[in-house]
Amino acid sequence: MTYFRPEIESMSGYVPGEQPQTGKFIKLNTNENPYPPSAKVVRAIQHAAESGLMRYPDPLGNAFRDRAADVLGVPRDWILCGNGSDDILTIVTRALVGAGQRLRLPYPSYILYKTLAQLQGAAWEEVPLGHDWGLPPEFAAATADLKLTLLPNPNSPTGTMVSRDAVLQLADQLPCPLLVDEAYADFADENCVDLVAKNERIMVSRTLSKSYALAGLRFGYLIAQPHLIQQFIKVKDSYNCDALAIAGATAAIDDQAWLRENVDKVRLTRQQLADGLQELGFAVLPSQANFVWCTHANHAAVTLYERLKQNRVLVRYMNYPGWQDGLRISVGTGEQTEALLALLKAMV
Amino acid sequence: MTYFRPEIESMSGYVPGEQPQTGKFIKLNTNENPYPPSAKVVRAIQHAAESGLMRYPDPLGNAFRDRAADVLGVPRDWILCGNGSDDILTIVTRALVGAGQRLRLPYPSYILYKTLAQLQGAAWEEVPLGHDWGLPPEFAAATADLKLTLLPNPNSPTGTMVSRDAVLQLADQLPCPLLVDEAYADFADENCVDLVAKNERIMVSRTLSKSYALAGLRFGYLIAQPHLIQQFIKVKDSYNCDALAIAGATAAIDDQAWLRENVDKVRLTRQQLADGLQELGFAVLPSQANFVWCTHANHAAVTLYERLKQNRVLVRYMNYPGWQDGLRISVGTGEQTEALLALLKAMV
Repeated sequence: MTYFRPEIESMSGYVPGEQPQTGKFIKLNTNENPYPPSAKVVRAIQHAAESGLMRYPDPLGNAFRDRAADVLGVPRDWILCGNGSDDILTIVTRALVGAGQRLRLPYPSYILYKTLAQLQGAAWEEVPLGHDWGLPPEFAAATADLKLTLLPNPNSPTGTMVSRDAVLQLADQLPCPLLVDEAYADFADENCVDLVAKNERIMVSRTLSKSYALAGLRFGYLIAQPHLIQQFIKVKDSYNCDALAIAGATAAIDDQAWLRENVDKVRLTRQQLADGLQELGFAVLPSQANFVWCTHANHAAVTLYERLKQNRVLVRYMNYPGWQDGLRISVGTGEQTEALLALLKAMV
Repeated sequence: MTYFRPEIESMSGYVPGEQPQTGKFIKLNTNENPYPPSAKVVRAIQHAAESGLMRYPDPLGNAFRDRAADVLGVPRDWILCGNGSDDILTIVTRALVGAGQRLRLPYPSYILYKTLAQLQGAAWEEVPLGHDWGLPPEFAAATADLKLTLLPNPNSPTGTMVSRDAVLQLADQLPCPLLVDEAYADFADENCVDLVAKNERIMVSRTLSKSYALAGLRFGYLIAQPHLIQQFIKVKDSYNCDALAIAGATAAIDDQAWLRENVDKVRLTRQQLADGLQELGFAVLPSQANFVWCTHANHAAVTLYERLKQNRVLVRYMNYPGWQDGLRISVGTGEQTEALLALLKAMV
């Protein structure tokens, strides 16, 4: 006999990218930033560690909300702090999608979204992206019991984007909230933050894991209209963000000069990576994120993945049935990117 | 119209104890430890802050699991790390209790448990504790659809305990897993960790918030048989504990000498607090936790709470309909306790 909900028992569980805790790898498989975070972040954390860890943190992380409100140009009660944007995705799904209801996501896309549906005992609809990586009309259809639509923008694993106009139009047509997952938006040319004010169904999630180089800190946030934020607060754990993460995240979003410099470097290397891969015969999708998706007509992606791993370079091999398999390669430092390209050159 | 699940829309949400972010209070309302954590914890966090925050943390927190396994005398795959024990409680409830099913808790008890049931669209059964704070036979009854029983031990707000024998007997009779919430067990004379091996239905949760003085860090863990842990891993967020929390928690559980010294101090002050309150005419329940529950025959608890707050001392006023209202007062430093007693002396 089992004690578990049947949905839990039968699911296989989301498997995140490999995180080797020992050994020296060039790690280009989970879209981490190759550079360390701002020194101001490290100092803020070190100070917070000495400043009353025996006390519970602020349940709402208002220090972060205040600074983020300034930077984003929204009032602070439009912002909800989360223990990584995974926490935000969990909160939103739990609040909106009940057992037997459904959520929608594009295909190919972030595999975790399906796991979130499974955990709720909910169904999911995967709608294939168009050939130009745009949204087909079915993506806006009002299916019965559709309670949430998830749109990563830029998308993973493709790195492609849907335009702001398309997002606005989609939200107007959908019968349910639309969560625009902007995990990678800092690396893109545009974003949807200001659209939240135009339609209450548009919500935007962000993470500090990628562009702020703080994957280890676990901090993300949601931007939504305040009557929605009020409901989400009921669903989150009371103290979902710890005092160190709040202090570090506040210092991070306060240091926009660091962000701009880092993003400039990553975008430059992204171009070098894409160019280098194309020179080696890879097909590379145009990316607005800190990774690229590539395939090679003459070489199986899984073989390249394994040979790179033997050479202590980790990239992400992904197989999307009905679409294709390929490699999602994070943008590393210039040096890491050159090392990767040199290895691939010897393989293709 | 609303986009939210009706259960979410209609619930009022759990309200944690006040966390004033400004002003100087003697804070005896959320059972925090009055002393700062071990200096080794602070150093471990400060080191981790400089050691690759751009990388994702270990999804399972194995550094902590290894040290905790040594300290607790269980294998490491019997341990699940959580972002506070709130995260553990959420994971366990989501994994076991589906919509329309039910969980059981004692009354009076930790109010959050009901919130967890509400979030799942589940029902809850509150079973009144006996007059000696033991478990009545109904607590072991096999109600239809009962999927989880929660037993805080020591209990909050009473500070009282159920014996190990009673826990074993309860687990033998129940049709579902029994989560023994040992948030306060380090302050007690005994605990149930070794009972997990005797019956797979017994699970024990712990937090570092109270006895390790790390409420600001958000770290808790579950001890359960490994086939259960495997299922819970599917439900947790992939990276639910951040790199700083894992480093701090590992250093904390490694410093058992600090723990023993701290617990000795708190237990001594607990006795002084209970004695002092009784001298002032309060009825005080015998506590095995780091707080006491007290009432006064001649003075309304809510008035005492308000007058203490005016004097910048925060205690927790709680009202349990059908039982009683009273004050739950955390054990502070010796000095804080004397200040509290002096204020109360002037009021009663």
